[in-house]
Amino acid sequence: MEILIIGAAGMVGRKLVDRLCADVKLGDRQITSMTLFDYAAPEEPEAVFPISSLGGDLSDPAQATRLVAGRPDVIFHLAAVVSGEAETDFDKGYLVNLDGTRQLFEAIRQQDYFPRVVFTSSIAVFGAPYPDAIGDEFLNAPLSSYGVQKACSELLLMDYTRKGFFDGIAIRLPTIVIRPGRPNKAASGFFSNILREPLNGEEALLPVSRDVRHWMASPKTAASFLIHAATLDLQSVGPRRALTMPGISVTVGEMIEALERVAGPERAALIREEPDELINRLVSGWPRNFDAARATQLGFAADVSIDEIIRIHIDEELGGTIK
Amino acid sequence: MEILIIGAAGMVGRKLVDRLCADVKLGDRQITSMTLFDYAAPEEPEAVFPISSLGGDLSDPAQATRLVAGRPDVIFHLAAVVSGEAETDFDKGYLVNLDGTRQLFEAIRQQDYFPRVVFTSSIAVFGAPYPDAIGDEFLNAPLSSYGVQKACSELLLMDYTRKGFFDGIAIRLPTIVIRPGRPNKAASGFFSNILREPLNGEEALLPVSRDVRHWMASPKTAASFLIHAATLDLQSVGPRRALTMPGISVTVGEMIEALERVAGPERAALIREEPDELINRLVSGWPRNFDAARATQLGFAADVSIDEIIRIHIDEELGGTIK
Repeated sequence: MEILIIGAAGMVGRKLVDRLCADVKLGDRQITSMTLFDYAAPEEPEAVFPISSLGGDLSDPAQATRLVAGRPDVIFHLAAVVSGEAETDFDKGYLVNLDGTRQLFEAIRQQDYFPRVVFTSSIAVFGAPYPDAIGDEFLNAPLSSYGVQKACSELLLMDYTRKGFFDGIAIRLPTIVIRPGRPNKAASGFFSNILREPLNGEEALLPVSRDVRHWMASPKTAASFLIHAATLDLQSVGPRRALTMPGISVTVGEMIEALERVAGPERAALIREEPDELINRLVSGWPRNFDAARATQLGFAADVSIDEIIRIHIDEELGGTIK
Repeated sequence: MEILIIGAAGMVGRKLVDRLCADVKLGDRQITSMTLFDYAAPEEPEAVFPISSLGGDLSDPAQATRLVAGRPDVIFHLAAVVSGEAETDFDKGYLVNLDGTRQLFEAIRQQDYFPRVVFTSSIAVFGAPYPDAIGDEFLNAPLSSYGVQKACSELLLMDYTRKGFFDGIAIRLPTIVIRPGRPNKAASGFFSNILREPLNGEEALLPVSRDVRHWMASPKTAASFLIHAATLDLQSVGPRRALTMPGISVTVGEMIEALERVAGPERAALIREEPDELINRLVSGWPRNFDAARATQLGFAADVSIDEIIRIHIDEELGGTIK
């Protein structure tokens, strides 16, 4: 089985690559080769099967054609201009997130075969006001260009699938916590920062109040969602191929309590409250809770708890212990 | 006030043009000129203000730029490849219905002004299974390429509006009954045929059972929706700019009873049942009923009854009497 991963250098992409290299199989089929693609060629990991790594621009129509020329059996499409950049650079967001995705779908159609296509969408397809828990039949009313680009891509994926051009599924990932690496400027970054930095023995700023609630999954679980989406029998899914992934709905206060339980109160004491008006305003428009009934029924499984999400980070990123 | 109507030669477009020529005003503002555009240049009606009529291809990117160069105050965008053709000619459907619409929006953005843009969407953005009455928060899950193209266009309109590039509103029209003219091959054509042909003293075929329920509006009411959408204060509408228009939900049996009441039993006797397997299958996936609460609250008003819809046809198309 040949696999193509577009956006392989991103945080979720790297988790997926590592997992596939370790598993050597996808479902019950042996992986025979893997192609990794990103804007800059991703690092090639150790693997028992051949891996090729390519860099390029997905908004170039010829790029998608080259990528699918070898007719990979499974295509993971994770590449995107992130939401902040898509909001400030309107043209670039549409060029990459919408046109790039459509060109990929079209290149697959032109190859005239039937691969599985797994596309990472986002809960940014939703916009306030929300019900208490957003169900599988709630409308897409994005409040960002990024959300519109993801919602349109979902619709295209469903149409290409319905027409038999490929076998697609779009999965809407929760906010990923704990993102490894350094703090970034993403408005949602604090959800990771307030756990990751104290685990590193460093101070973290909390820009919102402790009763802010959000929808989360660990990087490990995000990789599991992608693999499940690639191997699932989609006949039973029907034509609605965009699925909200199960997450856990927790408040900032519950996150801090979990940090205390897992890492001790002296770590939790490293969180300093510094309210940020802009971030508070943005967060107030974000989804807080979902009822991801369809995905759950189809075997997608959320993280167990925020405590477990913290333990996953300690295990995967800190070598199993807190220094 | 200058008005541009794209798709002015279509059935709803002609009703809108006639109404504006008669009103001479749009809301409380005098109409100073009107430009009509369609694939072939529309007929120029009599009017007290200057009208120019143009033909061309909206999928040509330069066409939209030319159309908005004069900075019309209100732009009605009604042009589309119809659902049947968009389904059989995949590329043409996307080229006109999605790319053509996006190019129009982009041409307006490049003009750097703030017109009102009224876009006709469709209840084809929805797909079965449905609740008993489809509410304003129900998901878009189209089961046709046409529906996907309309749903993506709605999302783009909302984003261009949110970014301040224009002041847009998308209205999802019910099925229009009674369509004037001759029977056509559209799968939904029978909803009009079973009323229009008997009113002309001719036989009509009924391909479905009498308990089939559907969502309808008259051509006159469709034109009223467009005018209300062009003049409504949109500040109160908020960012969700795609509205399901109010219609009436009636069964085929109720339509035939109304025909008897308005035109007599001998007209209703001209309907001959001839079940069609394909049409029955298509119809089973169509929406039957909506709760168009938001549009109703914003002052969009449905037809009063199917009896009234028949009377509107007699009045507007048959000179007020049945021959």
